[in-house]
Amino acid sequence: GRKVLIVYAHQEPRSFNGSMKRIAVEELSKQGCSVTVSDLYAMQFEPRATRNDVVGCLHNSEEFNYGVETWEAYKRGSLSNDVIEEQKKVEEADLLIFQFPLYWFSMPAIMKGWMDRVLVQGFAHEFPNCYDSGLLKNKLAMFSFTTGGSKKMYAKGSINGDIRYLLWPMQHGIMHFCGVKVLAPHICFAPEYVSEEKRKEMLIAWAQRLKTLWKEEPINCSPEWYFQ
Amino acid sequence: GRKVLIVYAHQEPRSFNGSMKRIAVEELSKQGCSVTVSDLYAMQFEPRATRNDVVGCLHNSEEFNYGVETWEAYKRGSLSNDVIEEQKKVEEADLLIFQFPLYWFSMPAIMKGWMDRVLVQGFAHEFPNCYDSGLLKNKLAMFSFTTGGSKKMYAKGSINGDIRYLLWPMQHGIMHFCGVKVLAPHICFAPEYVSEEKRKEMLIAWAQRLKTLWKEEPINCSPEWYFQ
Repeated sequence: GRKVLIVYAHQEPRSFNGSMKRIAVEELSKQGCSVTVSDLYAMQFEPRATRNDVVGCLHNSEEFNYGVETWEAYKRGSLSNDVIEEQKKVEEADLLIFQFPLYWFSMPAIMKGWMDRVLVQGFAHEFPNCYDSGLLKNKLAMFSFTTGGSKKMYAKGSINGDIRYLLWPMQHGIMHFCGVKVLAPHICFAPEYVSEEKRKEMLIAWAQRLKTLWKEEPINCSPEWYFQ
Repeated sequence: GRKVLIVYAHQEPRSFNGSMKRIAVEELSKQGCSVTVSDLYAMQFEPRATRNDVVGCLHNSEEFNYGVETWEAYKRGSLSNDVIEEQKKVEEADLLIFQFPLYWFSMPAIMKGWMDRVLVQGFAHEFPNCYDSGLLKNKLAMFSFTTGGSKKMYAKGSINGDIRYLLWPMQHGIMHFCGVKVLAPHICFAPEYVSEEKRKEMLIAWAQRLKTLWKEEPINCSPEWYFQ
C-alpha cells in the first residue's frame, strides 16, 4: 500500500478545507493507502525558524545562521523533536498533499513554517542535489487549495493574473527544488461564495480525482508551464 | 518628516540582514524621517492565524472563519493587541520596508504571518477597494532581501528562473492588492558566499540608494513587469 502525508492547515474541522481533507483520508484509505495527517493548527505547529530548532550547542554561537545550524543539527541528529517527527512522515510518504486556503497568493504562515523548518539542507536537498536530483526525488506532491476569488478573477489577463503565476514559488521553488514531482494542483475556486449544491459538486469532483490519482503524470515543472 | 516602518525578520543582529536594517534606520533617520522597526523574531511575533486574534465573542462560533471573524473584529475594535499595534504602525507609515532573507522563494513564515494577521479586510482592503483603490493607497513598499543563490542562478532561463517570478505573490498579490505602490526591490545576492569586501560594497550601495529613495518612481506592478 502506498503512503500519503496530508499537511493540512485550517482552523475549523467543519470548513470546506476540512471536508476536502476528510474526503482525501477516506478515499485514499479505501484504496488501501496508509494516510497520515499533519493537522498544523491542531498541533499548534511552530512556524518560526529559531534557535530552538537545534537541541544543545550551536555550531557557531557567535553568529546564528539558521540554514547552517539546522544543516549541522540534522547531520548529528539534534534537530528539535517536532521537526524530526515531520521529517519521518515525509521520508515514509510516496505522496504529499498540501490542503489549505490560499492566503495572500500563497500558503498560510503556519504551512510556510512547516516548509521552512522541515525541509532542511541535508534532509531535503544538499547542493548539488537539488531540483531533479533533490533528496526527496521519487516522491509526489500536490497542492490542493481554496481561493477567495473566482476562477474568472484568476484568468490570464484579469486582475489577479493567471493562477499559475502564484504556483511557481510553491511548486517549483519548494517541491521541485527538493526533487519532488508535482501533480497538477487541485483548486476549488471561491467555495464560500457558491451554492451548497456547487460545493457538493466540488467535493465529489475531488473524490473522483483521487480515484485515478496514481495514474496521473506529473506536470512539466518548468517556466513554460507557469508563464506561457 | 516622512514615516518609515521597517518590518524585519532575522534572528541574528550581527547578520548581513541585521546590517541592512541598521543602515536603513541610520540613513533614513539622518534624512529626518521617523523610523519604526518591527523586529519580528525579537518580538516573538505570532505567525499563526487563530481564534486568539479575536478578543471576546465570535461573530459565528459554530464555524470559525478567520477572514470573516477578523473583518468583524476590526470593525468593532476587538482584534488582539499585537495586531492592532502593527496596524497603527502601518497606518502612520509613508513607506514600508520588508527586510528578510529569502526562504523558499518567499518570505520567512514569521513575516508571512505578519501579512496574514495585520492586513485584514476592513483595514487594508475591502471589496471593491483593492488593487489601485486598496485602503493603503498613498503608501509605498519595498522588499529588501538576501538570497542564497547567485544573481546568475536567478536569471531568466537559468534553473531558479527570473527572480521577478517569485516577486509576484509578494509585490502584486499582497502590496498592490492593498493599494500600496511598490518600489523596485533591493536584492543582495548570496552575501554568505562573497568576500568581505563585496559585502561592504553591498551595504554601501544600500545606503546610497536610500539617499535618493524618495525620488524613485514605483514600478508598474502588472504581469508585464514580472513575466516578460
